[in-house]
Amino acid sequence: MTKSIAILGASGYTGAELVRLIATHPDQRITALTGERKAGLPMAQVFPFLRHLDLPDLARIEDVDFAKVDLAFCALPHATSQAVIRDLPRDLKIVDLSADFRLRDPAAYEKWYGKPHAAPEIQREAVYGLTEFYREQIRAARLVAGTGCNAATGQYILRPLIEAGVIDLDRIILDLKCGVSGAGRALKENLLHAELSEGTHAYSAGGTHRHLGEFDQEFSALAGRDVRIQFTPHLMPFNRGILATAWLDGDAREIHAVLQDRYCAESFICVLPFGTIPSTHDVRGSNFVHMGVVGDRVPGRAMAVAVLDNLCKGSSGQAVQNANLMLGLEETTGLMGAPLFP
Amino acid sequence: MTKSIAILGASGYTGAELVRLIATHPDQRITALTGERKAGLPMAQVFPFLRHLDLPDLARIEDVDFAKVDLAFCALPHATSQAVIRDLPRDLKIVDLSADFRLRDPAAYEKWYGKPHAAPEIQREAVYGLTEFYREQIRAARLVAGTGCNAATGQYILRPLIEAGVIDLDRIILDLKCGVSGAGRALKENLLHAELSEGTHAYSAGGTHRHLGEFDQEFSALAGRDVRIQFTPHLMPFNRGILATAWLDGDAREIHAVLQDRYCAESFICVLPFGTIPSTHDVRGSNFVHMGVVGDRVPGRAMAVAVLDNLCKGSSGQAVQNANLMLGLEETTGLMGAPLFP
Amino acid sequence: MTKSIAILGASGYTGAELVRLIATHPDQRITALTGERKAGLPMAQVFPFLRHLDLPDLARIEDVDFAKVDLAFCALPHATSQAVIRDLPRDLKIVDLSADFRLRDPAAYEKWYGKPHAAPEIQREAVYGLTEFYREQIRAARLVAGTGCNAATGQYILRPLIEAGVIDLDRIILDLKCGVSGAGRALKENLLHAELSEGTHAYSAGGTHRHLGEFDQEFSALAGRDVRIQFTPHLMPFNRGILATAWLDGDAREIHAVLQDRYCAESFICVLPFGTIPSTHDVRGSNFVHMGVVGDRVPGRAMAVAVLDNLCKGSSGQAVQNANLMLGLEETTGLMGAPLFP
Amino acid sequence: MTKSIAILGASGYTGAELVRLIATHPDQRITALTGERKAGLPMAQVFPFLRHLDLPDLARIEDVDFAKVDLAFCALPHATSQAVIRDLPRDLKIVDLSADFRLRDPAAYEKWYGKPHAAPEIQREAVYGLTEFYREQIRAARLVAGTGCNAATGQYILRPLIEAGVIDLDRIILDLKCGVSGAGRALKENLLHAELSEGTHAYSAGGTHRHLGEFDQEFSALAGRDVRIQFTPHLMPFNRGILATAWLDGDAREIHAVLQDRYCAESFICVLPFGTIPSTHDVRGSNFVHMGVVGDRVPGRAMAVAVLDNLCKGSSGQAVQNANLMLGLEETTGLMGAPLFP
Repeated sequence: MTKSIAILGASGYTGAELVRLIATHPDQRITALTGERKAGLPMAQVFPFLRHLDLPDLARIEDVDFAKVDLAFCALPHATSQAVIRDLPRDLKIVDLSADFRLRDPAAYEKWYGKPHAAPEIQREAVYGLTEFYREQIRAARLVAGTGCNAATGQYILRPLIEAGVIDLDRIILDLKCGVSGAGRALKENLLHAELSEGTHAYSAGGTHRHLGEFDQEFSALAGRDVRIQFTPHLMPFNRGILATAWLDGDAREIHAVLQDRYCAESFICVLPFGTIPSTHDVRGSNFVHMGVVGDRVPGRAMAVAVLDNLCKGSSGQAVQNANLMLGLEETTGLMGAPLFP
Repeated sequence: MTKSIAILGASGYTGAELVRLIATHPDQRITALTGERKAGLPMAQVFPFLRHLDLPDLARIEDVDFAKVDLAFCALPHATSQAVIRDLPRDLKIVDLSADFRLRDPAAYEKWYGKPHAAPEIQREAVYGLTEFYREQIRAARLVAGTGCNAATGQYILRPLIEAGVIDLDRIILDLKCGVSGAGRALKENLLHAELSEGTHAYSAGGTHRHLGEFDQEFSALAGRDVRIQFTPHLMPFNRGILATAWLDGDAREIHAVLQDRYCAESFICVLPFGTIPSTHDVRGSNFVHMGVVGDRVPGRAMAVAVLDNLCKGSSGQAVQNANLMLGLEETTGLMGAPLFP
Repeated sequence: MTKSIAILGASGYTGAELVRLIATHPDQRITALTGERKAGLPMAQVFPFLRHLDLPDLARIEDVDFAKVDLAFCALPHATSQAVIRDLPRDLKIVDLSADFRLRDPAAYEKWYGKPHAAPEIQREAVYGLTEFYREQIRAARLVAGTGCNAATGQYILRPLIEAGVIDLDRIILDLKCGVSGAGRALKENLLHAELSEGTHAYSAGGTHRHLGEFDQEFSALAGRDVRIQFTPHLMPFNRGILATAWLDGDAREIHAVLQDRYCAESFICVLPFGTIPSTHDVRGSNFVHMGVVGDRVPGRAMAVAVLDNLCKGSSGQAVQNANLMLGLEETTGLMGAPLFP
Repeated sequence: MTKSIAILGASGYTGAELVRLIATHPDQRITALTGERKAGLPMAQVFPFLRHLDLPDLARIEDVDFAKVDLAFCALPHATSQAVIRDLPRDLKIVDLSADFRLRDPAAYEKWYGKPHAAPEIQREAVYGLTEFYREQIRAARLVAGTGCNAATGQYILRPLIEAGVIDLDRIILDLKCGVSGAGRALKENLLHAELSEGTHAYSAGGTHRHLGEFDQEFSALAGRDVRIQFTPHLMPFNRGILATAWLDGDAREIHAVLQDRYCAESFICVLPFGTIPSTHDVRGSNFVHMGVVGDRVPGRAMAVAVLDNLCKGSSGQAVQNANLMLGLEETTGLMGAPLFP
């Protein structure tokens, strides 16, 4: 039976990407869209690329009849999300795409986001949304917290390696290259075409990026001890795509074998043959992850690279995948579209 | 019942785009792929973005068992296509994506392509593949000739206006902006990133572009007299998308009304409200056409703009749409995917 | 003797481009820079690409000692400029880069800019800054009004043709392609990399772009009658460069001869051999204009194309060229740097 | 007195960049240009962006009268250069931009370039062209070997740190981001706009990039022991610019102090304030290097980032700087042009 879907915060990029994906989803149907500042407008005016669809107009959250909704995606800004979700019906299934429920520890949340959490009781209830690693909890969850897009990319490489004990936990460097849509539709000087195209620079350098909170939480839990990786992203002059280069201490063949073994049954994660390195071009617009491993000339060192589309697998695609599980649907439904190349 | 599909020339962009589209098509299944120079290779090696699919390896054309094929797409280079198709089984349904069968008149072919046609008898049999205008002939056709991508874009604007007699036939200017994937995967200096990005220039200027052969054939037939439009394309520093700006003598409101009326029942063609102008961003990766009309400050002059994705609606998407008709399937099947934005 | 230069409004793109050009100018030296919102900051913080230069910090306009300034460039926002210039010393030489003094007729100004001019008496005094056509007036001027960048590009093609009477004045179409830096550093959604890259669209369509005010003023004066051209720009996914495609009624050879004749003695304007079409790639970062003419297959019709860098020749380079004249310097000083390619 | 300059191999990007730089050089004048396949053509036809210059036509090398040449730049392909230079007059000053004379050890050359050197006697004579570190030898040299562009970027960060002994020599990781013009004008599928724009990937991964030969030679000599860094470049969708991210074991403040101290007297190298990270946008088209250091949250770890323009400071700008020294000119002459932004 077709499930009724609400998208809260449909005027941003992750909201629009949800609409794009659900537009051809056979078992999900959008029955409500909200956007506070653009309430009353038709979606075709906010996002003309969705013009061919028959969609409800943007409404205010308070005007949505949640009794008729099977699942709500919250694609609201960070901090806004926690206040909104606190007031939604307690029995509504929710996939949150913000950063608000990713960290389970209120102190960690306050450290990385600079203020206390507004709904700590719900925070504890949330399941971390990295599907391939929390599948069973997600199936049973009421509230799933979508991961950071950088955090997802890094974890796809590192979780199996930490679990298998094949890398030095004190020598993990993640040099990340990130497309600009990850920054959202915010009006900032450094996101202008004139400032961003035709060059690159690092940002949140030296261990200050908020997604480190997720890495710390997840990796330390896996390892049973504190793990503190080094991670700096670089802003790329393209819209979609993350490439994470992991510089590792470990045996490259062993690393490759662990990843291949871990992901061979996963529908969305392709581990390339040893020595082959992936490109963001090959996953754009899709829910796929490509991953490769190569040995370094320096013995005992390896490089692993993972790529995904930050808006899709890194955010809205992951959200739909989780929603499929929560709604009792086949996990891959609506997500098998091929990447767009060139 | 699922139809068996062969793609001849699958190592180019239009071939890959066919695979992308058919990958999620419920009623078509790829059973043969050919690529002369890359025969023997798996598709995942030629196009890693298709790695998640279970596809036949690239073969030579002579190794394909056409008895088991319901329809073949020919995505071969211009001039190669006519020689290959001449030798294919006479009862095989074919959608050709090359320029070889677009012109019905052998003299016109020779004029625009510089040498006599190698298969003039088949040339006469081919149906011109602009779906919305040749739908019934395509349904019954054995061989459909896909249109030029620029030619399709211009015709979507101009055909209804010529038929309705609302524009001056001697005053039609088409200033076209064309993404680079239309030039294919050819190794040419001017297609290098370093030469093409961050700027633009015109090409085939002054009425020398080959797609004029199609415009002349189609518009003259519609008008019952010779029509010679002015048309120059400009090469754009992006990969997918054509924007055609038509500068017209005629009443803008009347032009808009004719287009709206003509396309209101079409699934893939959206005529925007009067005064609204479309963007290539809003159709990328999709089979949709957006079209807009605005009046000029100079009385009696109008501007009409159409956008489409050259690789999809302008080529491979059109081909799948035509194949659906030829195979007795619902025309829009597999083609309703939303554009990719941003 | 080195001239002392002030730049008012140095925190925008045209201001920064002035600094870039004057940095290697042998006869001009920057002694004051202003930026209201960023007053007090060093230029290196606002524009790190200027870090190697020894520049004054950004100040407020009221803190500049104009007694020591030989010439001031005003790179302030439209409408702000007129109020500021009204209050500057009456004997200060000024090159204004805003739109405020381009139109001589107060009624025309009000029509295109939506409100009355704040300094109509100065408006009448200003000389229009298209150097190659107002050279002697500029040499003697106190206040020069820099042209619009689109307006300059179009005029380079059209002025000589209108003067020579070789084109139909009622049949002038200017289809313009414009890089995004022309829109400045303003925070607008459509200027974000994610919205603008990888596609194109028209804007200010149908005869609504403000630079039409300049075309009307200049062309009508030249022709001795009202001339109303058709003009629509398209926003391009690159930062620098304008390509103007003029669709003309006239003899292409004659048009080419007129342009070649008119510009053969000009240092910055290259008319290409007949049939050769220019590219924006070939003038980026420079003060040069390339221009080409090609005949259409339709007899009596021609296409002329001009390219320039909107920030340099279209704005700040033109301003320095005019300042050279006003200061009694050789016109080309500091402006002969070659374009940046690739 | 103006020096007479020949550029051998002027039809590639580094050759064209030499022409661009020398075009406004007060003390160097181009008297010969060669290009084997394009001999006989005017430069304006090969590179229309140089159209405004009065340049000799492209000739064959054997047609150049070297008696009248003060210095020749060789911008020939790798392997070609050694054969050509072997046959040039023994008293001609030469700056070679190829890889042929960068490695002093014939065995190292053969290892990295796959065949024996054709002119080992000259190989030993060549001075390595990293100006800031070989200044006095360059001044006296007959033949200077321009460095690899990646190799230059990495060495600017690492040489002072190795010399000062402030980093762990067994823990040096260089994650490099490289613009596409570094690959030259070669016709390769992966350099096409359609394949390269809108995404990124690593190449020559795991310690296989040829510039490692230079790192090994230089760093081992500095350290007095074998140093083997880890280095992988990533191909960027922009034309000019290299950003090198060095992941280091060492004290960030100490690292910053060493760099600041080493470069404070250098004209082209700006070390940014501690904690500030540079952008390739800020050096494009110039001979400047920007460098920044930031501490990691993991104690004892640091990140240093350097940016430069691969075609200018990484190749042709460096070559002009070296030529200035060899010709007895002021080192910075002709090279102080500001970067192009945006």
